Amino acid sequence: MKAIRKLSPQAGFDWVDVAPPQPGPDEVLVKIAHASVCGTDVHITDWDDWSASRIKPPLTYGHEFCGHIEAVGPGVEHLAKGDYVSAEMHITCGICGPCMSGKPHICSDVQIAGIDRDGCYAEYIVLPKRQIIKLPPSIPLHVASCLDAVGNAVHSVERGHVSGQSVLITGCGPIGLFSIAVARALGATRVFATDLSPYRLELAEKMGAHRVFNPAQEDVLGTLDQLLRGRGIDVVIEMSGAEAALTQGFEALKPGGRMVLLGLPTKPVQIDLTRHIILKETEVVGVHGRRMFDTWLLMLELLDSGQLNLDPIFTHQLAMSDFGQAIDLMRSGQAGKVVLNPTA
Amino acid sequence: MKAIRKLSPQAGFDWVDVAPPQPGPDEVLVKIAHASVCGTDVHITDWDDWSASRIKPPLTYGHEFCGHIEAVGPGVEHLAKGDYVSAEMHITCGICGPCMSGKPHICSDVQIAGIDRDGCYAEYIVLPKRQIIKLPPSIPLHVASCLDAVGNAVHSVERGHVSGQSVLITGCGPIGLFSIAVARALGATRVFATDLSPYRLELAEKMGAHRVFNPAQEDVLGTLDQLLRGRGIDVVIEMSGAEAALTQGFEALKPGGRMVLLGLPTKPVQIDLTRHIILKETEVVGVHGRRMFDTWLLMLELLDSGQLNLDPIFTHQLAMSDFGQAIDLMRSGQAGKVVLNPTA
Amino acid sequence: MKAIRKLSPQAGFDWVDVAPPQPGPDEVLVKIAHASVCGTDVHITDWDDWSASRIKPPLTYGHEFCGHIEAVGPGVEHLAKGDYVSAEMHITCGICGPCMSGKPHICSDVQIAGIDRDGCYAEYIVLPKRQIIKLPPSIPLHVASCLDAVGNAVHSVERGHVSGQSVLITGCGPIGLFSIAVARALGATRVFATDLSPYRLELAEKMGAHRVFNPAQEDVLGTLDQLLRGRGIDVVIEMSGAEAALTQGFEALKPGGRMVLLGLPTKPVQIDLTRHIILKETEVVGVHGRRMFDTWLLMLELLDSGQLNLDPIFTHQLAMSDFGQAIDLMRSGQAGKVVLNPTA
Amino acid sequence: MKAIRKLSPQAGFDWVDVAPPQPGPDEVLVKIAHASVCGTDVHITDWDDWSASRIKPPLTYGHEFCGHIEAVGPGVEHLAKGDYVSAEMHITCGICGPCMSGKPHICSDVQIAGIDRDGCYAEYIVLPKRQIIKLPPSIPLHVASCLDAVGNAVHSVERGHVSGQSVLITGCGPIGLFSIAVARALGATRVFATDLSPYRLELAEKMGAHRVFNPAQEDVLGTLDQLLRGRGIDVVIEMSGAEAALTQGFEALKPGGRMVLLGLPTKPVQIDLTRHIILKETEVVGVHGRRMFDTWLLMLELLDSGQLNLDPIFTHQLAMSDFGQAIDLMRSGQAGKVVLNPTA
Repeated sequence: MKAIRKLSPQAGFDWVDVAPPQPGPDEVLVKIAHASVCGTDVHITDWDDWSASRIKPPLTYGHEFCGHIEAVGPGVEHLAKGDYVSAEMHITCGICGPCMSGKPHICSDVQIAGIDRDGCYAEYIVLPKRQIIKLPPSIPLHVASCLDAVGNAVHSVERGHVSGQSVLITGCGPIGLFSIAVARALGATRVFATDLSPYRLELAEKMGAHRVFNPAQEDVLGTLDQLLRGRGIDVVIEMSGAEAALTQGFEALKPGGRMVLLGLPTKPVQIDLTRHIILKETEVVGVHGRRMFDTWLLMLELLDSGQLNLDPIFTHQLAMSDFGQAIDLMRSGQAGKVVLNPTA
Repeated sequence: MKAIRKLSPQAGFDWVDVAPPQPGPDEVLVKIAHASVCGTDVHITDWDDWSASRIKPPLTYGHEFCGHIEAVGPGVEHLAKGDYVSAEMHITCGICGPCMSGKPHICSDVQIAGIDRDGCYAEYIVLPKRQIIKLPPSIPLHVASCLDAVGNAVHSVERGHVSGQSVLITGCGPIGLFSIAVARALGATRVFATDLSPYRLELAEKMGAHRVFNPAQEDVLGTLDQLLRGRGIDVVIEMSGAEAALTQGFEALKPGGRMVLLGLPTKPVQIDLTRHIILKETEVVGVHGRRMFDTWLLMLELLDSGQLNLDPIFTHQLAMSDFGQAIDLMRSGQAGKVVLNPTA
Repeated sequence: MKAIRKLSPQAGFDWVDVAPPQPGPDEVLVKIAHASVCGTDVHITDWDDWSASRIKPPLTYGHEFCGHIEAVGPGVEHLAKGDYVSAEMHITCGICGPCMSGKPHICSDVQIAGIDRDGCYAEYIVLPKRQIIKLPPSIPLHVASCLDAVGNAVHSVERGHVSGQSVLITGCGPIGLFSIAVARALGATRVFATDLSPYRLELAEKMGAHRVFNPAQEDVLGTLDQLLRGRGIDVVIEMSGAEAALTQGFEALKPGGRMVLLGLPTKPVQIDLTRHIILKETEVVGVHGRRMFDTWLLMLELLDSGQLNLDPIFTHQLAMSDFGQAIDLMRSGQAGKVVLNPTA
Repeated sequence: MKAIRKLSPQAGFDWVDVAPPQPGPDEVLVKIAHASVCGTDVHITDWDDWSASRIKPPLTYGHEFCGHIEAVGPGVEHLAKGDYVSAEMHITCGICGPCMSGKPHICSDVQIAGIDRDGCYAEYIVLPKRQIIKLPPSIPLHVASCLDAVGNAVHSVERGHVSGQSVLITGCGPIGLFSIAVARALGATRVFATDLSPYRLELAEKMGAHRVFNPAQEDVLGTLDQLLRGRGIDVVIEMSGAEAALTQGFEALKPGGRMVLLGLPTKPVQIDLTRHIILKETEVVGVHGRRMFDTWLLMLELLDSGQLNLDPIFTHQLAMSDFGQAIDLMRSGQAGKVVLNPTA
C-alpha cells in the first residue's frame, strides 16, 4: 500500500509503497477513509527540534483519521468488518499513577500512533482493539477524519465549565476554532475569540463566535468590558501558547474566573501571580489530550445530536498523494482543516 | 392603592384598597409594572390545607413581579428611583447553618414575601434592599414579571449539570416548561418532556423540547431507548411530584445518571433504592428556591445574552383586577404563565 | 489443590480437590496467602434466592484474598513471580457506557470472580493481569486478605466527602465497621455509628467511632442534636439496608446534607421526598463496588501511610478447611472479619 | 481607652488614649480579650510601600482578635452582651459580582477593619453585626485571638482537597504552620513542609508535619521521590511567595496534581507552563481571605471537635502595651504567633 513516511532523520517526506500491516491478537485492521493534517505533521515534515528528539524513522505518520474495519485479530469480539470507526491514538501503559487513577490521557509512558509507531497516512492501520471507537453513521467522513483534534477542543471546553458562562478563546488555530463551536454547543452564553490572522478570525465567526478581535488592531479589554457591563470574562481558553495572549486573558478574567491552558508556550512565561491568580482566586487548569473515553462519548453525542456543527472549518480536501500541497496550505495559514483521501 | 388580599381564613380573594407601604431604613419601595400568577396563588385563593396552616390573614399575596423603584429609605446607596428591578422574595435569617454556609435559599427560618408578609399583587411593594435585583433593559416586562419562577427552573437545571447531556423533564407545568428552554440554553443535547396534558405538551414543544411524550398513550421508555441507542438518559428533572413520573424517570436513567427533584409529592413515595440508586450509583439531588444570588446572575446572563427565549409560555396578560379570571385560567390547565398588570 | 466449591445447586459447600488453574495469555497465577469471608459467601453457602438465580455450579467461591504471584502467562510484563498482590474481582466488559466513561465499577456486563467464575477459596487463582493490584510490603496479610471489602468502605466514605464533617454510619457490619475507621482517616471530625447488636457496637468503638448508639434503646436523634448543638449531621452513610435506619439517617441530616447509600434493601422503601430531600436540598448518592482503580490507590495510600488502622475488626483466623466453622461464626453475628488460611 | 495607632504616615506606632467607639444601628461593641499580631502589622509599623499606598492615618490597626460583646446597637437581635466572639474583618460591599455569586471574600470593593478602618489593637472595637462570629466555649482565648489567620489556612487547605492525599507545604510562616495542622485534621495522609529557617522547621514538626526540609541543605525532590515511591506529591500549598519554592513545588507535584497559591510574590514569576501545568494537567488555584462564612463554620467545627490542635504555634503572650517588643519578636523570625492582652 501507499503511505506517507519519514524514512530518514531530515526534512521532507516520502510517499512510498509499504507492506500493509496485519492484525495480531486483540488488534484491528482499519481501511482509512479520510485522514486529517495536524500542525504536528508540519513539524515532523520540517524535522524541527522536537521531531528530531522524538521521532525514530522509518515511520508512517498521521494521527487523525476515520475508516472502516477490514479485519480483526483473535480475541476481538465487539468489533467486526465493516464497522465505521475512528481511534484514540494515545496508547497508554495502564499501570502508571495517572492510568490507575482514571487519567490515562496523561499517562507517564504513553505511545502515540503516528509519532512513536506507525500512524494513519496510509491505506491501512493496525491498532489495539481498545483504541478503536465506533462511530454513529450520522457523522460524515470529513468530520470523523479529525476527531482526535476535535477531542482536544471538547476536552478543553469541558474543563472550562462554560455552560451559562462568557468565554474568551485566545488563538484560532484548528483547535481554537473547534473550541468556539464546542463552547456554543455546551451552552456558553457569549464566545469571544482573538487571533492575529484575519483569515482565522473570519473562520472564527463562521464557527459561531459572537465577536472576534485582532489584538494588534483593537482594544480587546475595553470592548469586552463594555459588552460584559464591567463583569469580566467567566472563562478564558488559551489556545495560542503566546505570552501576550495569556496575559490579556488574565486581564480579561473576572475575579473567581477560570483559565484553561492548552496552547504550549515554547519557553517559560512571566505571570503576575499575586494580581492575576491569588487575589482574584483564579483557577488555572492545564489540558492535554482527551479523556479516555469520556471525551469521546461527549463528542460523539454532541455530533450525533446535531448540536455541534463543524463544517466551516473544512476548507480543503486533497488526495493523500498531494501531501506536499497539504503541508504548504498548512504553512500558509490560509487553511482550516485539510482532509486527505488515501485512495483518491 | 388597589391590592389582591386574603382578608379572612377562607376560600376566595379580596380586590381592595389599602394604604401604600413606605420604605424604612435599608428598604426600597417598588412600583409594580407586571406580576405573574403562580400555582401557589391558586392554593392560597382556594385556601387548601397548606394555606390554612401557613397564611395569616390579612395578607397581600403574589410573589412574582417586576417594576421600577419609586423611593428608597435611608441607608440605600446603590439603588435609585427609576431603576428597573425584580426581587428575591425569600427573606432569610442570615444566622442559621444554611445561611452561614452559602445556602440561604434553604434557610431554616425564611420569610417569604407574598406568603408570610405582604407580596406583589398591588401597585407598590416595600422590600429590604438586599432582596432587590437590578435588571438589564434587554429583559421585557412580561419575562421580568416571573423571574422568581424562572429562577426555580434555572436552579433545577444547573443542579442537573446538563451541558452536553440528554435530559428528561417529567412534568410540564410552568417550571417544567421553563426548564426545557433553560436546559437547551445551558447546552443539553437532547431534551425530552412528559406530561399528561396535550395543551402542556404542545407548549413543551414550543419551548424547545426535541420530543414530548404523553406517558398515558406512548411507550416512553421504549422510544427513549431507541432514540438514545440504548444508553439511557443522562439527567432526569422531576417537576411533577407524581410517583409514577419519578419511577419512570428512574427507569429511563443511565447507570451513573443524575436525578433532580423539584416537584413536591404530597405523601411519601416508594423507591426501589437497590435497583434505581445503589447498583446504578445514581445521584439524586433535591432542589428548592434559587441560589442567592448565583442563580439570579446566571438567569440574567442567559436572558441578557439572548441565549434563553421564554416567549411561548406567556399565553395570557390580564388586568390585575381580573384576578378571578386569571385563577380560572390557571385551574383550567389551558394556560402557560398568566401575567397581571396592576394599573391596566 | 484443595478448594471450597459449590458443586450442586443446593445449600452447603464442598471442600474438594480440584486441578490448579494455569495462566493463559495476559493472565496471572496467584498463590493465595489469606482469604476473607464475606456475607455474600454465607448467602451462597445457604443457597438463598439470589444465589440460586445467579450462581452456576460447579464454582469455587470466595472473592477477598491476597497472595503472591506464582507464575505469569505470555504478555504479562509488569508483574513477576513473588509479587505481593491482591485483585479487583469485578472483571468488566470495557465497552459499555459506564466502562467507556470511567465508571467500570458499574459495568453493565460485569463478571465477578468468586460468583460468576472461580474465586479465591483455593490454593491458587488465575486472573487477567489488569485485575491484579501490587501491594506495598507494609500491609500485613490479614488486612490484605479483605481489600475488596475495605474498598467498598473507602469508596462509600470518599463519596461522602467527609473531610471536616460530622458523619453518621447506620449499620456496623464489616463494611460499616471499616467505614468508621476510613471516615476518621479521611478527616471526619465526628463519627457516630448505630447498630442493634451490642457486639458490633463494641467493635465500632474500637474502630474509632466517637459515639455509638443502639436505636432500640437510645434516643439517637435527641442525643445527636445535643452533641451537634442543633446543626444536624453533615453526612450519613447507610450500610444496613434497613428502612428504619434510612429514615433515621434522613431525620438526623442537616439541610444541604449528603446521604450515601450502600446497604441493599431487599424491597422498595418509603421515602418522604418533600421533607427529607427536596426542601432540604439533600444529595443522595448510591455506591457500589470500588472505583477502578482510584479507590485502590487511595486505600493503599491510607494503609501504607499508617493513617488507617483496621486491626480491631480481625477477630478470627481459621484454616480454610474449617470453612464450616467460619460460616457459623458469620451467622452468629459474633465476628468481625474471619480470615482463612488455605494451607494451614 | 488605650490603642495602638498609626497617627502619621511614617514608620513607628503610637500607644495612645482614644475615645472608645459606640455601636450604631446594626452594630456591635466588643471588649477585646486577646489580639494577635500578623505580618501585615509589621509592614504597617515599618510603613513599607504597600502601607504608604493603602493606610490613611490616623488608624487603630490590628485585625485578629477575640473578645466578649459589651453592647449592641439597635437592630441587633441574635447577639447579646457577654457573648464570646471573634469577627470576620473583611467588610464587603454586597453588590459586586463576587459578592452576588457567593464569593464575598474576593469582593471588588472590600474594606478591612485594621487596615481601612479602625481595628482591634485597643480595648474595644465596633463592627457591623454580620461580621461577628459567635464562638463555642471550647476554644481557648489564645486560639480565638487569631482565627482570621487560622481561617486563611483552613481556606487554603480546603481548596487543596487534601483528604487522603500527600501534601507539601512550602513556607512555614504562621499560616503555613497552621496549614500543617489543618491538613492533618482534614485527613491528609502525609504532610511535608519546607522552610529556610530552622526555628520554623522545628515548629512545623510540632504542628504535625511528618517530615520537614530545609531546601538549602537537603535534596527535597529526591527524598520525596523515595518516600512516595515515585508517585509525586498530590497537593502543594505554596505559602512563601518565593519563586524558588513555587518551582520546587511544581517539580514535586504528580501529574494531575493540585497547586494552591496563597503566598504573595512581590513581582511576576517565571513558570514553565508547558512542563508544569499543561502536559501534567495541573490545577492551580489562588486563595485569598476566608470564605464567608463556610470557612468559619469548618474552622469552628475542627476546633470544637478537638480534631485540630494549634497549641505549639503560640510561643509568646505579651501585654498590648509591649507592642514594640512584639514587633521585634516578629521581625526576629524567632516567634510563632504573638498574642497581645490589652488590659494586662
